[in-house]
Amino acid sequence: MIKILLFNGSPRSYGLTYTLLNFALKGVSSVGAESKLFNLYDLELRPCLGCLSDNQNSCRYPCVIDDDMQKIYNEILSSNGIIVATPIYWFAPSGTVKNFIDRLTVFENMIFISGRSLVEGKVAGVIAVGNDGGAVQTISAIVSALISMGFTVPPFGFCYHTRDEEPSENTLRDAFNVGRNVALLAKVLDKNESSWYDVKTVEELSAIKEEVNMLCKLNKEGALPKRKVLINKLTPKDNLVLASIEKSKDENKYK
Amino acid sequence: MIKILLFNGSPRSYGLTYTLLNFALKGVSSVGAESKLFNLYDLELRPCLGCLSDNQNSCRYPCVIDDDMQKIYNEILSSNGIIVATPIYWFAPSGTVKNFIDRLTVFENMIFISGRSLVEGKVAGVIAVGNDGGAVQTISAIVSALISMGFTVPPFGFCYHTRDEEPSENTLRDAFNVGRNVALLAKVLDKNESSWYDVKTVEELSAIKEEVNMLCKLNKEGALPKRKVLINKLTPKDNLVLASIEKSKDENKYK
Amino acid sequence: MIKILLFNGSPRSYGLTYTLLNFALKGVSSVGAESKLFNLYDLELRPCLGCLSDNQNSCRYPCVIDDDMQKIYNEILSSNGIIVATPIYWFAPSGTVKNFIDRLTVFENMIFISGRSLVEGKVAGVIAVGNDGGAVQTISAIVSALISMGFTVPPFGFCYHTRDEEPSENTLRDAFNVGRNVALLAKVLDKNESSWYDVKTVEELSAIKEEVNMLCKLNKEGALPKRKVLINKLTPKDNLVLASIEKSKDENKYK
Amino acid sequence: MIKILLFNGSPRSYGLTYTLLNFALKGVSSVGAESKLFNLYDLELRPCLGCLSDNQNSCRYPCVIDDDMQKIYNEILSSNGIIVATPIYWFAPSGTVKNFIDRLTVFENMIFISGRSLVEGKVAGVIAVGNDGGAVQTISAIVSALISMGFTVPPFGFCYHTRDEEPSENTLRDAFNVGRNVALLAKVLDKNESSWYDVKTVEELSAIKEEVNMLCKLNKEGALPKRKVLINKLTPKDNLVLASIEKSKDENKYK
Repeated sequence: MIKILLFNGSPRSYGLTYTLLNFALKGVSSVGAESKLFNLYDLELRPCLGCLSDNQNSCRYPCVIDDDMQKIYNEILSSNGIIVATPIYWFAPSGTVKNFIDRLTVFENMIFISGRSLVEGKVAGVIAVGNDGGAVQTISAIVSALISMGFTVPPFGFCYHTRDEEPSENTLRDAFNVGRNVALLAKVLDKNESSWYDVKTVEELSAIKEEVNMLCKLNKEGALPKRKVLINKLTPKDNLVLASIEKSKDENKYK
Repeated sequence: MIKILLFNGSPRSYGLTYTLLNFALKGVSSVGAESKLFNLYDLELRPCLGCLSDNQNSCRYPCVIDDDMQKIYNEILSSNGIIVATPIYWFAPSGTVKNFIDRLTVFENMIFISGRSLVEGKVAGVIAVGNDGGAVQTISAIVSALISMGFTVPPFGFCYHTRDEEPSENTLRDAFNVGRNVALLAKVLDKNESSWYDVKTVEELSAIKEEVNMLCKLNKEGALPKRKVLINKLTPKDNLVLASIEKSKDENKYK
Repeated sequence: MIKILLFNGSPRSYGLTYTLLNFALKGVSSVGAESKLFNLYDLELRPCLGCLSDNQNSCRYPCVIDDDMQKIYNEILSSNGIIVATPIYWFAPSGTVKNFIDRLTVFENMIFISGRSLVEGKVAGVIAVGNDGGAVQTISAIVSALISMGFTVPPFGFCYHTRDEEPSENTLRDAFNVGRNVALLAKVLDKNESSWYDVKTVEELSAIKEEVNMLCKLNKEGALPKRKVLINKLTPKDNLVLASIEKSKDENKYK
Repeated sequence: MIKILLFNGSPRSYGLTYTLLNFALKGVSSVGAESKLFNLYDLELRPCLGCLSDNQNSCRYPCVIDDDMQKIYNEILSSNGIIVATPIYWFAPSGTVKNFIDRLTVFENMIFISGRSLVEGKVAGVIAVGNDGGAVQTISAIVSALISMGFTVPPFGFCYHTRDEEPSENTLRDAFNVGRNVALLAKVLDKNESSWYDVKTVEELSAIKEEVNMLCKLNKEGALPKRKVLINKLTPKDNLVLASIEKSKDENKYK
């Protein structure tokens, strides 16, 4: 059965962050998936020690820090996706949510150890709630981190509320659909057996490289005169520019 | 057949943005999907006129501006996904790429006119290239916009290069996989028939709301004493704080 | 004497984050200002409890949490500026740095209690270090938070390094100048006696509002025909658009 | 006399972007500075051609593109600061505003040609207006670009409005103060004669480098045993980690 984990990053398990997260939970259930909600503030969750910067291999699942993330790691491994709900503190996730994200590095860094991110192909959604601005900046930062770890994000995979008032019906609908879509995409992907990273060999890459370089070379030869004419027509006042572009013709940075 | 469109947002159809985009194209082909590459700088692409702000209904497909986007709109409608490659200008997409994104509003705004975003369920990938920083900020901004329009982003659905030198083999692999994963996810989703937005009725929302509010009420009753004790223990020096939290007990913003 | 505080947000007080922060420290000293460096990981620094969301007045200096921030609060109050150096964890500040920023809310929120942010007019600089991307996204998020608290940021007030190699001389220069410029601007501002927020009365605001609204009204009357002609010329195919814009003429959202 | 330029990036010179920009203009006047407002949509403003990527020296003031930016360049050079107001299109500046920012590169890139950014020490403020989210992400991106060009941003140097309703009095005050603070800081800086970039010689940098490296070495020797004990205590399960950190002792990336 599809299982989606929901993480509440607010210290208040009764505020709007928690409320919208529960709407997402209803969305998860609505398509027949299982859900489980965790309050991050209830966990002992220590900050990342940056072992990675000492040695790339020292950051691996399970993390060297023996706190409640150990339990969470196992839950995530056996899940199909996660939904992270964060209060917006200074236009960004709360420090607690950021610690949580930082601690997921042990999954992603396995790429360098066993060749595959342990969260590859899982699905993610994000909810951000505040009473001022910064929702999208908060979400963008989380979303790009999660995609870079190997998560995938469904259509309308995030929602936010940034007013000092009751969320509108549209916002409640959006939150419901974050949960629904994370679960729906997880269902669709459950049958997918492809790996999400094709490790082309150096030879395969070289062949593509040669072909692409040839194309760039041709395009450059075609484009430079036009670029020069354009520049010349616009402003003949600075011949240095033309000279310098001419010069660069033989200095293609990417050969 | 799966069709993925690739958009080059660089004025130079021979530089590294274009190069990485072509690696993505090879990735698209590698899983048997069709591809088509457009140079945005070759198109007449006028800036969005913000009709939406005059009247929500005035922004609709096709856009009132009669330029080359009309052709692109049709291409996108008949495609399964897009890959946007942008040079990094001041830690953000180039103005030309931004104009392109702004002009996609006519698809998304159909939600308010016909109830459904015209790009809902299509797949998107992003590539950003510069010789300094700002790649992730550039990508985050594009990714969150596209997800909000209804696109979905696959695992490892973006890549970047920000050095004044030849991209590493890892970067070339990443670019290849952006294309491959966009096409792969498009394939998986091609058979999906669900709509990606469940428009719950006001009654359904109200039922969920009642249930969630009850949960919040219980949690709040449980949490407040602990929150007060915690605060009291930490610092008895400011009784105003306790008083004000006490007071807020009956002022739950979300009722 | 001008005093600038430097905060190391890396768990490693010997890595590149720490190194660049020390170059900034030299920049501070170079213009005759005093400096003091703190390793955030050496402090007990608990996460923000979000009291603010229970009641706006409950978040005030000093914070209800009795940890090492109490000491830091006093240091900041008696300083002229701060420099925050963070490792880049997932394209964002480390959780520890984020906790530090969250905990500064007690200074800013005094606006609602005593009418003035306690860090208003102090100067800030930012340093971000990683071996991959995300530096600018990290910095942008910190910079906008600090400006919103009342800090000011000098020219070239941030720097970054995102490569798995020794920083270039330019990067070292940049780090030095972050420190130098924070101290220089602090010096210039030290003599400034203006408050940085002019609380216009409702009457004053109303007068401006009336004047600006009149200007908007005139501009709208001038612009609408042109906007309509433009739209009409471009595409007569959708008369609904014209009609809807016409209609909106009398529905200026801002009256 | 202090002169501040205001740029309206909205196609509608009567909407809320324009309205808030005019409140900023009143703030500029309130401290006795001169102001001048430009509607970017009224200008011919072509996209950046990325000459820089062909050759670093080919991007210089004045730009090779002979459009209305030529006039704007001169205005900016003779001003003390700028305020950029943008509508929020897809959580980011409008394409037109982005083109404007991209075209400022000719000022900053003079660092590589004549050793100094032509906008160094000028002051900047930002206003973003929409009816949904994305204001802070929009502002953060502009602010970090401008600081990186050499602008400085005053306390409370930006403001935003993201609701489909009349701005509150607080928002109007904020907009007024963006203008006021940009002008105030420009006044304070007008007497400043320091350059904002100290080009330390290679020798000076080397001396600092040696000193900082020594400090890092000592700190590393002090920290590693503690880091190892900590890790050991937490989890003895993975001796590889300890071994790998031990190994890294002699592999300090920054020597």
